[in-house]
Amino acid sequence: METAVLKLHCQDMKGIVYNVSRYLFECGGNIINAEQHAEAIDNRFFMRVCFDCSGLNRTREEFQAGLAALAAEFSMETRLSFSDRRKRMAVMVSNYDHCLYDLLLRHQYGEINADFALIVSNHRTLEPIAETFAVPFFYVPVTPQAKEEAEARVLGLFQAHHVDFVVLARYMQVLTEAFTSRYQNAIINVHHGLLPAFKGARPYHQAYEHGVKTIGATSHYATADLDMGPIIEQQTVRVDHTHSVETLVAMGRDIERNVLSAAVKAHADDRIMVYRRRTIVFR
Amino acid sequence: METAVLKLHCQDMKGIVYNVSRYLFECGGNIINAEQHAEAIDNRFFMRVCFDCSGLNRTREEFQAGLAALAAEFSMETRLSFSDRRKRMAVMVSNYDHCLYDLLLRHQYGEINADFALIVSNHRTLEPIAETFAVPFFYVPVTPQAKEEAEARVLGLFQAHHVDFVVLARYMQVLTEAFTSRYQNAIINVHHGLLPAFKGARPYHQAYEHGVKTIGATSHYATADLDMGPIIEQQTVRVDHTHSVETLVAMGRDIERNVLSAAVKAHADDRIMVYRRRTIVFR
Amino acid sequence: METAVLKLHCQDMKGIVYNVSRYLFECGGNIINAEQHAEAIDNRFFMRVCFDCSGLNRTREEFQAGLAALAAEFSMETRLSFSDRRKRMAVMVSNYDHCLYDLLLRHQYGEINADFALIVSNHRTLEPIAETFAVPFFYVPVTPQAKEEAEARVLGLFQAHHVDFVVLARYMQVLTEAFTSRYQNAIINVHHGLLPAFKGARPYHQAYEHGVKTIGATSHYATADLDMGPIIEQQTVRVDHTHSVETLVAMGRDIERNVLSAAVKAHADDRIMVYRRRTIVFR
Amino acid sequence: METAVLKLHCQDMKGIVYNVSRYLFECGGNIINAEQHAEAIDNRFFMRVCFDCSGLNRTREEFQAGLAALAAEFSMETRLSFSDRRKRMAVMVSNYDHCLYDLLLRHQYGEINADFALIVSNHRTLEPIAETFAVPFFYVPVTPQAKEEAEARVLGLFQAHHVDFVVLARYMQVLTEAFTSRYQNAIINVHHGLLPAFKGARPYHQAYEHGVKTIGATSHYATADLDMGPIIEQQTVRVDHTHSVETLVAMGRDIERNVLSAAVKAHADDRIMVYRRRTIVFR
Repeated sequence: METAVLKLHCQDMKGIVYNVSRYLFECGGNIINAEQHAEAIDNRFFMRVCFDCSGLNRTREEFQAGLAALAAEFSMETRLSFSDRRKRMAVMVSNYDHCLYDLLLRHQYGEINADFALIVSNHRTLEPIAETFAVPFFYVPVTPQAKEEAEARVLGLFQAHHVDFVVLARYMQVLTEAFTSRYQNAIINVHHGLLPAFKGARPYHQAYEHGVKTIGATSHYATADLDMGPIIEQQTVRVDHTHSVETLVAMGRDIERNVLSAAVKAHADDRIMVYRRRTIVFR
Repeated sequence: METAVLKLHCQDMKGIVYNVSRYLFECGGNIINAEQHAEAIDNRFFMRVCFDCSGLNRTREEFQAGLAALAAEFSMETRLSFSDRRKRMAVMVSNYDHCLYDLLLRHQYGEINADFALIVSNHRTLEPIAETFAVPFFYVPVTPQAKEEAEARVLGLFQAHHVDFVVLARYMQVLTEAFTSRYQNAIINVHHGLLPAFKGARPYHQAYEHGVKTIGATSHYATADLDMGPIIEQQTVRVDHTHSVETLVAMGRDIERNVLSAAVKAHADDRIMVYRRRTIVFR
Repeated sequence: METAVLKLHCQDMKGIVYNVSRYLFECGGNIINAEQHAEAIDNRFFMRVCFDCSGLNRTREEFQAGLAALAAEFSMETRLSFSDRRKRMAVMVSNYDHCLYDLLLRHQYGEINADFALIVSNHRTLEPIAETFAVPFFYVPVTPQAKEEAEARVLGLFQAHHVDFVVLARYMQVLTEAFTSRYQNAIINVHHGLLPAFKGARPYHQAYEHGVKTIGATSHYATADLDMGPIIEQQTVRVDHTHSVETLVAMGRDIERNVLSAAVKAHADDRIMVYRRRTIVFR
Repeated sequence: METAVLKLHCQDMKGIVYNVSRYLFECGGNIINAEQHAEAIDNRFFMRVCFDCSGLNRTREEFQAGLAALAAEFSMETRLSFSDRRKRMAVMVSNYDHCLYDLLLRHQYGEINADFALIVSNHRTLEPIAETFAVPFFYVPVTPQAKEEAEARVLGLFQAHHVDFVVLARYMQVLTEAFTSRYQNAIINVHHGLLPAFKGARPYHQAYEHGVKTIGATSHYATADLDMGPIIEQQTVRVDHTHSVETLVAMGRDIERNVLSAAVKAHADDRIMVYRRRTIVFR
């Protein structure tokens, strides 16, 4: 089955669901799933429709033109994607492999509706894993002096490999604003703490010293403001006095991979919408 | 704001969302929230629409007549309810008070969109609680010899108090089929085990003896077949070798009250649909 | 069975378990349960022993004298309590009743090894609940101008009612250092956020605005530094974009009562030890 | 640091902790951690002591002889293991790789105190993974007609590779009683259901059809009675009507690997004791 996903948001008003569903019906689309959300802030309405587009009675270009007219009428912002155009992801890593393995395995199991375009790393450590899974691997070392050149090289690789979105799978370099602004709401990071608590470095050490009884991990879109981008997914695990920092790190690996993979799956499915600093993650 | 909830299910086919949203739009309704679900079994489509009906451009009777016509066209089963007609619930209890207290307090906090019609018990133990919360209390003793008379008395009380649905808050009597069939998908029971495991009596003892590492509680619609009705909500809690049966019972109280209240809230909100032995619980 | 709990901590060294168990054996005590913990910080050793003291072959005074000698030998800090001397707790509340109800009900179920000495409130709202459960209630209004007088009155009440520890069950006044220092590691507070995130006022609003996907509640010992005392228990619950601030507040009630009651139970059982800003909570 | 773990159980009586700690003290051992458990059934006492044995003032043989004398005095069953003798595990797999990968990766991260002796499979599918991680792989096909020969071959391989315990990482063949009795409480299986619910084949299909709201996975010691051996660990995950059987299978993979790895870690650490059909899993 050929499907498409339409995401839109606009001022909340009467008739949006009706007009969207009417348009899809007229074009021969069949709604498989639709979700709405009304955000109290600014009285904003969000909608995601997944529809069977194999019976479209016009070309995709015609369909999109009609959609643009509808969007203009309701001042909607819309985004449309077709399932036969799978997204391509770049994964950036350093030395830790647990998030990378999780993504590679879930991709093999068919859980992720996107494909690996390439893996980029500032270390050679994980190159053998890339080889095992037959994903192109590029070693791009980063030095404080030559960070911009390195980022330029990475951006060039992304362009050459037709990258749609980027996954920072425990990539241990801070990206510049120039870089993050090129992939707005399209760079997914994992932070090994339950943001906004324990931002920055060594969150498990911070957690240990605070004596918290719960640790967590967070996946979010990367923005210029480190660890402050819109949160996509968080998971927690109970800890107690018997757990050393090393144990917290080990327990953290499990939730880090989970929250990152959940975010990647949601992004690949076009289930995420961002409004201000909040995300709407449809099911 | 005056709202209404429309629930429907029918064969899955093109145009259902469109036709329903068109009808609501024509009648002056404004969709606040809509959810759909396609159940693979029998290719069945389910939908719940919550809409603002304060701007309806016709009487409720006219609206319902038009809806009936639409339902006939698509062979839909529909159910409509208006928020200004709050549901009335009967709570049946025996000696345990934790589920009853949880319902009474959540009702006070405004979490439950229904009101207490009465409390019926086969013991006098909890009468003072009913008094404190100003809910009519009726003591209806049950003996094996006179179970049918007792049930008849209870049904009479329900009718007199305009009961819409029934909550078995750890009511320790098995109801007859004659009774349960009078309130189909409208009697909510809590079982202190993670069904289908540990059916029947003394589930915490069973759990202890099996040495399980997780116990649970289940809320479900009561049917003639004890503990086998459609499951609405389940919660679990980790246990280990240090927990005695008494501790399991204590830990179980917390999840029993949670799953029962969650089910009552969902039912009161018209968020539950039943198909075969499965429930669809919209958000 | 008469039992006692011995808690101790000291430098970690060879022979502590042996010497403690030897002393108990010599005195006719029978160990029911013992837990140890070695905290990496400062190489510190912690131990809690619960023992059957009904067969003690000397008076309690003699037993304690011998224990003091042992403690001196190993530079141990020790604390001993007997189960036949139940602790007495003061509960301070304002207008919210969910934590208070939870404590009262768990006490009735026998879950809490302590008794209510009195309830103190800066409002009259919850007085009827205190009456229902037959706990003395004292209304002590607090004004910014006369905070110290109010606290003095409260401390007087605590003394008169032989209070061992204090529970702040959503008490909405900040206590002075003079007050908290009188009950060191004996005032248990609940904060409706997952500390150290969302300190201070309106944590659910903060959580909503940050768009977090997990909210939490924290119970901790109150210290002069607000919301910074040693954490005893934390629980979290998943949230998503569909949840309004009001829903977060409602979901929060469930975990607030849980973490507070868990802390109260642990404190009443003498299961908590504090070292620096971390707690050791034995099972 | 050289450490040893002593596990013992016996009738509960006065002086056990004292006598064990005295013996360790006399021999120059230093207790790092000790846990006790009193099982109500049969008044049975269980103890696990981890001690630093680098300062033992006698040979290990002498230490064990003295321990045997102590055990005889108190009718204790004891088991002793030294950390410098790492356990060797055999992993049996079929076609699914998620549990195998999880074990291999956790082993690399240093989470598992045991080493891979070999991987045995009735399929060749996972051989490349074994090669990548440099673990000997043996293909032992199983046919209904020649099951005993196959098992004999496997047992021969285990002996040749000095296998201490066996992990069934989604091995899809039922083992005979002759096989399981050779490794009593030393074969760890994962079942993809929350036992005792959904025993046997296709548990996710069963769960879907029952409409449960929680699914789970269970690790347990394999016994002759399929899926009935002592449970070591269970985890659950919430599901709802939107999840297809395929989604349940995918969600199940996460908890299957978790419960199996948790059991393997506990077994490798000598933290598990079995009594009747219950396990005591020390921390």
